[in-house]
Amino acid sequence: MADERLRDELRRFVAEREWAQFHSPENLAKSIAIEAAELLECYQWSGDADAHRVSDELADVLTYCHLLADRLGLEPTKIVRDKLEITRKKYPVETARGRSVKHDRL
Amino acid sequence: MADERLRDELRRFVAEREWAQFHSPENLAKSIAIEAAELLECYQWSGDADAHRVSDELADVLTYCHLLADRLGLEPTKIVRDKLEITRKKYPVETARGRSVKHDRL
Amino acid sequence: MADERLRDELRRFVAEREWAQFHSPENLAKSIAIEAAELLECYQWSGDADAHRVSDELADVLTYCHLLADRLGLEPTKIVRDKLEITRKKYPVETARGRSVKHDRL
Amino acid sequence: MADERLRDELRRFVAEREWAQFHSPENLAKSIAIEAAELLECYQWSGDADAHRVSDELADVLTYCHLLADRLGLEPTKIVRDKLEITRKKYPVETARGRSVKHDRL
Repeated sequence: MADERLRDELRRFVAEREWAQFHSPENLAKSIAIEAAELLECYQWSGDADAHRVSDELADVLTYCHLLADRLGLEPTKIVRDKLEITRKKYPVETARGRSVKHDRL
Repeated sequence: MADERLRDELRRFVAEREWAQFHSPENLAKSIAIEAAELLECYQWSGDADAHRVSDELADVLTYCHLLADRLGLEPTKIVRDKLEITRKKYPVETARGRSVKHDRL
Repeated sequence: MADERLRDELRRFVAEREWAQFHSPENLAKSIAIEAAELLECYQWSGDADAHRVSDELADVLTYCHLLADRLGLEPTKIVRDKLEITRKKYPVETARGRSVKHDRL
Repeated sequence: MADERLRDELRRFVAEREWAQFHSPENLAKSIAIEAAELLECYQWSGDADAHRVSDELADVLTYCHLLADRLGLEPTKIVRDKLEITRKKYPVETARGRSVKHDRL
């Protein structure tokens, strides 16, 4: 599984640096929000962002997401799929098509 | 590849709802930041969060990350790995071990 | 009014630099989120933050809040007071005392 | 001082509910980021947001900013002014005029 290989690489990276002590779920959640804002900063003043910088910041968000998932015993691909199933029901094709409103206003 | 299967499922989900029109890279970057804050909200007043809610919100962050990656032609697993390589050099084991400071203060 | 004096100083600062063109409400909302995450970064790994850095980042959040308020014709002090009135009703003293749960779970 | 009157109202609001126990600087910093993302959500899919909702969310960001300032013994108006002084020097009118780039690229 791609998820597991990546998870193992991240585990080794963290273990070598003895960083698990800092990686409480709460600290990782903060880190995801911090990196997400750095990604957003690429688009602060315009929709036209530097591709390399975006890739870099997106990688940081994803890295912390993987670390949090592993810390909580969650499989990233699985939870995305499970959520997709729920979202499919909340936003049925017939009513949601071509509209960006929230499900409670559909 | 796990990444590709998930990417295809997400593409179909978006296509069926004709939502690609809303998914500019900028809007997706905003969405990642918004969902990251909902994840953080699980830990707003304490480090002790509801496991189900966390999984749910983390899935939302990951979903928008995958959508942005696909929109920009990036492979999630690959960019995480590439970034890990860079971070390995910025935080060498000898100096970074057991410390949470930023690389420019190591 | 303190609000008005500060507003005028900020207006002059922006006008001199011809930055109003970048200050759409949306860009200012992004900027507030970006600066809020930089403030959060002070507390990324511990509750013990550098006081000077916190003050600096909090100032940035407030600055963009004032710029957005001015852009939308809102008075910062007034909207805080109006919201406080609403929150008072949503969280009555008797039920909210000593509890950090959301009003819909009170 | 407008700042002081508002500060006193907020203090009373918090004291009546015995909420100071939840208001560590770190929790307030998280809260600012969370509310900033709710403000951003008003602009998630378009620059055209509901004015009332924006005012409401901006008030929430400001409220937590005031609570954090008070918790740290900072005067909101003063720190905004002090920071403005620094930013004036970092972005001199001659080089910054009409440009949205960061000072280190000016």
